[in-house]
Amino acid sequence: MRDAYHEELDSVGDGLVEMARLVGSAIGRATTAILDADLALAESVIEADRTVDELQHDLEARAIALLARQQPVATDLRIVVTSLRMSADLERSGDLARHVAKLARLRYPERAVPHDLHATILEMGQLAQRLMAKSAEVLVTQDIGLALQLEQDDDAMDLLHRTLFQHLIDGRWQHGIETAVDVTLLGRYYERYADHAVAVAKRVVYLVTGEHAAEHRPDVLPPTGAEGA
Amino acid sequence: MRDAYHEELDSVGDGLVEMARLVGSAIGRATTAILDADLALAESVIEADRTVDELQHDLEARAIALLARQQPVATDLRIVVTSLRMSADLERSGDLARHVAKLARLRYPERAVPHDLHATILEMGQLAQRLMAKSAEVLVTQDIGLALQLEQDDDAMDLLHRTLFQHLIDGRWQHGIETAVDVTLLGRYYERYADHAVAVAKRVVYLVTGEHAAEHRPDVLPPTGAEGA
Repeated sequence: MRDAYHEELDSVGDGLVEMARLVGSAIGRATTAILDADLALAESVIEADRTVDELQHDLEARAIALLARQQPVATDLRIVVTSLRMSADLERSGDLARHVAKLARLRYPERAVPHDLHATILEMGQLAQRLMAKSAEVLVTQDIGLALQLEQDDDAMDLLHRTLFQHLIDGRWQHGIETAVDVTLLGRYYERYADHAVAVAKRVVYLVTGEHAAEHRPDVLPPTGAEGA
Repeated sequence: MRDAYHEELDSVGDGLVEMARLVGSAIGRATTAILDADLALAESVIEADRTVDELQHDLEARAIALLARQQPVATDLRIVVTSLRMSADLERSGDLARHVAKLARLRYPERAVPHDLHATILEMGQLAQRLMAKSAEVLVTQDIGLALQLEQDDDAMDLLHRTLFQHLIDGRWQHGIETAVDVTLLGRYYERYADHAVAVAKRVVYLVTGEHAAEHRPDVLPPTGAEGA
């Protein structure tokens, strides 16, 4: 039987899973909105981000109330503090999905993504959504193996990001500067979204093992031309 | 006379001020490095970011130890939790300065910023550094008037960001796609840096007044051409 204290702690965890579910759905829908130039879908993503922000505020208020009232120590304290960080990661992921949707809205009725990058952006969007779904699962199951798997998925995102950059500067770009700017920003949004999803999973690893997962990721920079990186 | 508890609390505050000082210097030096194509300076910014990361880890460890040992409530609890958030903002600002420096290193011996955008990037870099200096001052003085002034400075940053975008797509861009990608990312880095500096000052306002400062800022999106935003 759970006491009130552990019920409060569990409800913080439930809030995180709900946030992850919402921002996972948001990046999927934002990607569809930008690829299909679907204004109504873009608007719904932008609107739904308010719910994520409200969930974060609620969750933070509950976490802080729990700190004040229950004064947890050791593992429980670590859980509450780490939850605050995870909620910040998830809130930011929601912002990034909203950025994608806003770009879709800005370019409507045009498509922001040219045809020859459709597949790459679709893959980035799907991977981002999958990363967040896995992070939500890690939150629920505390499955360390799955958490470590996210790092590989994140490498795949970096590769897609590099592919995108390479496409931009391969000398055959015919979509003008405005579209190049849009695609550069989109790439950055998906990469950052993935970083936050991975951060959530890493924080679960920290909670379970007490060890910070290694920071192995290099920054993705734009590619160099002839001179090599 | 201060007791040990309040000395610990003060030392967390001192850590934040030190972090703000370091990341303020970093964005100034990174801007010089990218404008002058100064490899040694870029390397020094990249290297110095480790110190910021270490400071954050130390500060977080001390804040969490303080929560466990002293079990603060009410205002003191709010200070500690908010300090954790501010340290995350400052650590991220340091990352963004490092990104600018890495771009300088990537393009060396070339200059990443074309001559006709030199003044704009310089102004963005100076403004970013000034924003962080003011945030550090707000941390020390808890001067709410100064904190509110930061919002105006942030509006100035948004304006510079828009100017940068406008320059990219005014139809006279002659620097190629690679440079357009670099400049787009640079604009994003400075904008995000400014957001974090302002967030720190807003959190001080929250600590002093108990009220969350309004989220008034619109997202800066790339400009539209003929069709209007």
